[in-house]
Amino acid sequence: MRIGELSRRTGVPVPTIKYYLREGLLPAGELTSPNQASYGDAHERRLRLVRALLEVGGLSVAAIGEVLAAVDDGDGPVHDLLGAAATRLVPEYGGGGGGGGASGSGGGGAADAETVLARERVARLIEERGWRIASGNKAAEALVAALASVRRVGHAGFVELLDDYAEAAERVGRIDLDYVTRRVAREDLVESVVVGTVLGDAVFAALRRMAQVDASARTFGEEASDV
Amino acid sequence: MRIGELSRRTGVPVPTIKYYLREGLLPAGELTSPNQASYGDAHERRLRLVRALLEVGGLSVAAIGEVLAAVDDGDGPVHDLLGAAATRLVPEYGGGGGGGGASGSGGGGAADAETVLARERVARLIEERGWRIASGNKAAEALVAALASVRRVGHAGFVELLDDYAEAAERVGRIDLDYVTRRVAREDLVESVVVGTVLGDAVFAALRRMAQVDASARTFGEEASDV
Repeated sequence: MRIGELSRRTGVPVPTIKYYLREGLLPAGELTSPNQASYGDAHERRLRLVRALLEVGGLSVAAIGEVLAAVDDGDGPVHDLLGAAATRLVPEYGGGGGGGGASGSGGGGAADAETVLARERVARLIEERGWRIASGNKAAEALVAALASVRRVGHAGFVELLDDYAEAAERVGRIDLDYVTRRVAREDLVESVVVGTVLGDAVFAALRRMAQVDASARTFGEEASDV
Repeated sequence: MRIGELSRRTGVPVPTIKYYLREGLLPAGELTSPNQASYGDAHERRLRLVRALLEVGGLSVAAIGEVLAAVDDGDGPVHDLLGAAATRLVPEYGGGGGGGGASGSGGGGAADAETVLARERVARLIEERGWRIASGNKAAEALVAALASVRRVGHAGFVELLDDYAEAAERVGRIDLDYVTRRVAREDLVESVVVGTVLGDAVFAALRRMAQVDASARTFGEEASDV
């Protein structure tokens, strides 16, 4: 099909498609004449994936480029490929210290203590659950930053939920992998990780909000008609 | 304490604190002279919460203002208060249609069909699980948008995982509510929802990535030292 038809099918404007082509998010079409290219179903599918990662996943164009590079990089063992895709999908946090530019004695010291505590807790969690994860894993680092932040806002008690959360996360992780391994083709497999992780986050976050509303309705015995 | 001390303790620069005061994210200090104010532990705690929502939660200043308004609004039944806080924490998706400005026959029609299917599926899920959730609930709408997007990228099979996901989400929702109801004070209670939901999302997403890496390592039997 021509670029105009690709635009009509997906609802993505032609200039936007051309921008994705320039950025490498979409492979070039097949040249049918010096200034005309033809696009196929694979282009349509990839274009829909890019839009989903942008709109539902909230990923930046740069992050999508990195993730798609992992999808398209067909070399290496399957586990490495999955790991590379999953690791590139870890959200980046600004966190770490207490925040802005000022770094007085109290703030800096307190922030470090929280991070040290969080790091110890995460290391213990990985050991206790027997998770096969390297110590510098990006997701583990993100967990340390989030837990340190939870402590910093005075909700250290929330950290006690970590084992229950990990139990539920293990269950979801197994569901995710079952889905992924049902795929046969290698490209499909990594694409499944991307879809399952990014869109799966959105799906799970929405389900969790709904479950919270339901749990609150049951606990406090009130009608939920207004929320 | 004076604003300089508040800055030192939290690591947030004085001009940033003044900006939060103007935006209403932080209540005004107690005036000790016509141009000098004093701040207490409550200010320090609130300031840390604002930074955590910005840095770990990725919320905008406007969204934080809305959420804190729910925390500070002490009226109404507990369930309404929790619902209001949880609903304001639902991520906004650009989704809905296929994307950009173009709206051809194929794209628009296909997008509508996916949304209709997703809406039916979510309604069935709510009924089957007996969740006490209103039909227009914002989280349910976000779920519809995410599922429609999953179908649009050719991963309709992922929707089959919905029941398993919902089972795990119910478990996490109960953990969340147990934590929240341990709190006695009303302000603490709603603040717990905010912390538990926003920082809890970050914690759970990180745990899920780690569990995926572990599940992949077990399934494909390879060393995980590099991821």
